[in-house]
Amino acid sequence: MFPLSEGHFAARNRWYIAAWSDEITRTPIERWILDEPVALYRQENGVPVGLDGRCPHHLYPLGKSGTKNDNIVCDYHGLEFQPDGTCIGAPFLEGVPGACNVKSYQLREKWNWIWIWPGDPELADESLIPDHFEIGVTNPAYHAVRGLRLDIAARYQLLNDNLLDLQHLEVLHAGILGNDGIGQADEERGSGEDWILSARKMRDIELPKAFQPFFGQRRVDRTLTMNWHIPGLHVGPDIFTVPEGEPDAGREIMQVIAYHALTPARRNSCHYFVTFARSFAHGDEAVDQAMLKSFRGVLDQDVFAAEEIEKQLQNASTPQKEILFKSDATLVIGRRLLEQIIAAETT
Amino acid sequence: MFPLSEGHFAARNRWYIAAWSDEITRTPIERWILDEPVALYRQENGVPVGLDGRCPHHLYPLGKSGTKNDNIVCDYHGLEFQPDGTCIGAPFLEGVPGACNVKSYQLREKWNWIWIWPGDPELADESLIPDHFEIGVTNPAYHAVRGLRLDIAARYQLLNDNLLDLQHLEVLHAGILGNDGIGQADEERGSGEDWILSARKMRDIELPKAFQPFFGQRRVDRTLTMNWHIPGLHVGPDIFTVPEGEPDAGREIMQVIAYHALTPARRNSCHYFVTFARSFAHGDEAVDQAMLKSFRGVLDQDVFAAEEIEKQLQNASTPQKEILFKSDATLVIGRRLLEQIIAAETT
Amino acid sequence: MFPLSEGHFAARNRWYIAAWSDEITRTPIERWILDEPVALYRQENGVPVGLDGRCPHHLYPLGKSGTKNDNIVCDYHGLEFQPDGTCIGAPFLEGVPGACNVKSYQLREKWNWIWIWPGDPELADESLIPDHFEIGVTNPAYHAVRGLRLDIAARYQLLNDNLLDLQHLEVLHAGILGNDGIGQADEERGSGEDWILSARKMRDIELPKAFQPFFGQRRVDRTLTMNWHIPGLHVGPDIFTVPEGEPDAGREIMQVIAYHALTPARRNSCHYFVTFARSFAHGDEAVDQAMLKSFRGVLDQDVFAAEEIEKQLQNASTPQKEILFKSDATLVIGRRLLEQIIAAETT
Repeated sequence: MFPLSEGHFAARNRWYIAAWSDEITRTPIERWILDEPVALYRQENGVPVGLDGRCPHHLYPLGKSGTKNDNIVCDYHGLEFQPDGTCIGAPFLEGVPGACNVKSYQLREKWNWIWIWPGDPELADESLIPDHFEIGVTNPAYHAVRGLRLDIAARYQLLNDNLLDLQHLEVLHAGILGNDGIGQADEERGSGEDWILSARKMRDIELPKAFQPFFGQRRVDRTLTMNWHIPGLHVGPDIFTVPEGEPDAGREIMQVIAYHALTPARRNSCHYFVTFARSFAHGDEAVDQAMLKSFRGVLDQDVFAAEEIEKQLQNASTPQKEILFKSDATLVIGRRLLEQIIAAETT
Repeated sequence: MFPLSEGHFAARNRWYIAAWSDEITRTPIERWILDEPVALYRQENGVPVGLDGRCPHHLYPLGKSGTKNDNIVCDYHGLEFQPDGTCIGAPFLEGVPGACNVKSYQLREKWNWIWIWPGDPELADESLIPDHFEIGVTNPAYHAVRGLRLDIAARYQLLNDNLLDLQHLEVLHAGILGNDGIGQADEERGSGEDWILSARKMRDIELPKAFQPFFGQRRVDRTLTMNWHIPGLHVGPDIFTVPEGEPDAGREIMQVIAYHALTPARRNSCHYFVTFARSFAHGDEAVDQAMLKSFRGVLDQDVFAAEEIEKQLQNASTPQKEILFKSDATLVIGRRLLEQIIAAETT
Repeated sequence: MFPLSEGHFAARNRWYIAAWSDEITRTPIERWILDEPVALYRQENGVPVGLDGRCPHHLYPLGKSGTKNDNIVCDYHGLEFQPDGTCIGAPFLEGVPGACNVKSYQLREKWNWIWIWPGDPELADESLIPDHFEIGVTNPAYHAVRGLRLDIAARYQLLNDNLLDLQHLEVLHAGILGNDGIGQADEERGSGEDWILSARKMRDIELPKAFQPFFGQRRVDRTLTMNWHIPGLHVGPDIFTVPEGEPDAGREIMQVIAYHALTPARRNSCHYFVTFARSFAHGDEAVDQAMLKSFRGVLDQDVFAAEEIEKQLQNASTPQKEILFKSDATLVIGRRLLEQIIAAETT
């Protein structure tokens, strides 16, 4: 579906972020992921479980049911399911047909994230989860913050597009996170089968307003990168160094790494998990809160854009086309890489 | 439509409850019944009238119009309709084409209920309305209470299913109305062309919490029956007797008869009329209110289940199936009986 | 679509009222017109501009973007559009493909109205806008008032039907604007290719309640006319004269001219612009407010009717028909004239 080509919705045999760790407790919740309801809860030992959200008996939501020890028990007739999806019975049943077993999703809890593999559990390949030390969240050099989850009334690819396209910072986030010149800065691009990276270096610019509360009003060189680990996570280091001509030129002043994860909820909606790590003020909660607040302001602009475009798409009485510029190349390559992953699954 | 087989919605040439008596007054209301709008009001002598809810001239809702003596007068252009549906004119009209006549529904007011026959008025057969003395509401041995009407965002058959399946009490209503053991208790089943009955007897159990305020905490034998007068009404006597081993064993302690009527509103919604009669505390309004409140708590659980299943059905991107157990036999037979009635109408 | 024949929605190469003048400022707004989003704003010199509401790059709403001098600048990536729709670039672009140009709507600002031509701008023919002096709004003999805009959840033709059918005043607006006898009064009808007029004269009736606060309770002759300038505007002079038998018989007591403009928003919704001019109490704002309030009461009844009929149409599970009387002739001719205009555009 637009903006992907017709027939492409999402890659199922890949990892996505399903939840913040602390969202999942002993009490099940229902969360729609890739157009399916998933019941998420924890076993007594804390291990998270994801089961098909519909009881196969009468389709009552397991994500709105309760637990009994490690199992989920349907609130309607008491069918009991083990973490592996096996139905072990109900008060009124003697012998349980195997047809009652439900899908158990592969989950991995890493740092503050619960990763989910929506596709075939047999194919779940943990090595496809981005290395958490490498991306920074578990690297002690950075202070990583438990961030936000936003429910977005827009198809997920609109926000992946948005992230691959750093040019929008200059306009949509002008005066907060953007600088004159991001759009003009030379772009370096790299890509592989399941990743694409865009970097832009700006020289001798003013530190963006979002960071002035911590480092004052000063000149910097800035290298902003966005690296999409397709499909589930964007990692965006934003590195500020002392500009040419100043003593100490080239020294890193600070680094902020943004993390953006988009997980399709239904066809026209998604979950947006977002947070950041930083190289300074380790453990300072006041800085955490101030930066989250500033982040939220920027995100609200992105979300507004995506939701408005979604409305235009849904309300249009005729099919809409977009015009792509040379400067949209990264976004277009990103879509093609994702489409190839989706296509490979279905053939 | 699910959970009935494809193409089966509802039986039209049968009686349903359209309203509580006191809902219908001289001022028309619009109520959707079997996917049609019906204008319901009373003549000057109090006799209730049900007319097609759409003025045939420009489709203005007659159920949001006014009356003139015994007639309903369209608020838009003044077309006037007699209780039998005959259009007798409008201020600007000379001669009224017969095409202006609207359908007049057959109604019967019995006890506190207005019954409606949505199908062909010529075929309306009053003998198909359950005998109100026999079911208890007009039998002086019982004290029957004007109950509730709930608007349900779920297809009606989900709630008929729910009522035919007494096993759910043990889980969904655990601790309120259910007992350990309802699911395991032997089921007696009876059925005819347009009725099906399920009864379960539990021996020496604790009186359910819902009734303890009136009879204390004590051991009882319980015989719970649900008799579906297909399609419109379920009559559910719940009889409590002194258990074996106690002096007076077998004596009836009390009886509560529940009445549940489901009337399709639109395809994915229904009206739920519910009340009860009891063998004790005749005329005691405080008991009426306490029991209605307790009833309402139980109903809210049933309604939650039905509406959640409806959402799962509507949100599913792929057709959903259910798994039926041997213990679902009553519910399945009930559906088949209803389908036969529907099929007989259309052939 | 109903009540027009299948396949007929709206005439595009005609003028409609898009907005009250003071609704359009330097800050763009989005308004849906004939099922398309239009961005409306003013140039620095005050001249109003209407551009396609979707940025052709990524479909961000231009009507929720900002301006730079006379141009609109997309809030997402900064694409800048001149009032004529030419895209002159973006911060990150060198050379702008002509494909980026957007449609610029022909607008005309007259009196307090912004007129829009939704179709081919090349065909915009100003002479098709009703003459504002002739219809009264700019004729100093009348005091014309900046009126109301109502957003209606009903297809526009239901309200055009309503206006062509003066009979409804007697019932729907009984006691406020209607009189016994409007429906019975002889109708004079006139029509041309793109106009239709219905007039009714009532002799020696009581002045309608709506006007009694200004002229007391008295007998009058009344000539009520509604002239539809198809498709965009109805002009309705309501002339009250001294009745036969009184001294001064035939002298005009006063005249009120109502203006009703319906502009399709989406297929099932429209904008309703409504106001009036009067021959008395020039410049008296208290009378303006009193009359607007009284007008609003009448309009609320019309809007209720249209929205209720829209609901009946949308909720009906089977196609609905209407029954048309001889007295519906004007409305039927009006529909046919409109259908001919629509059909002529598409052949």
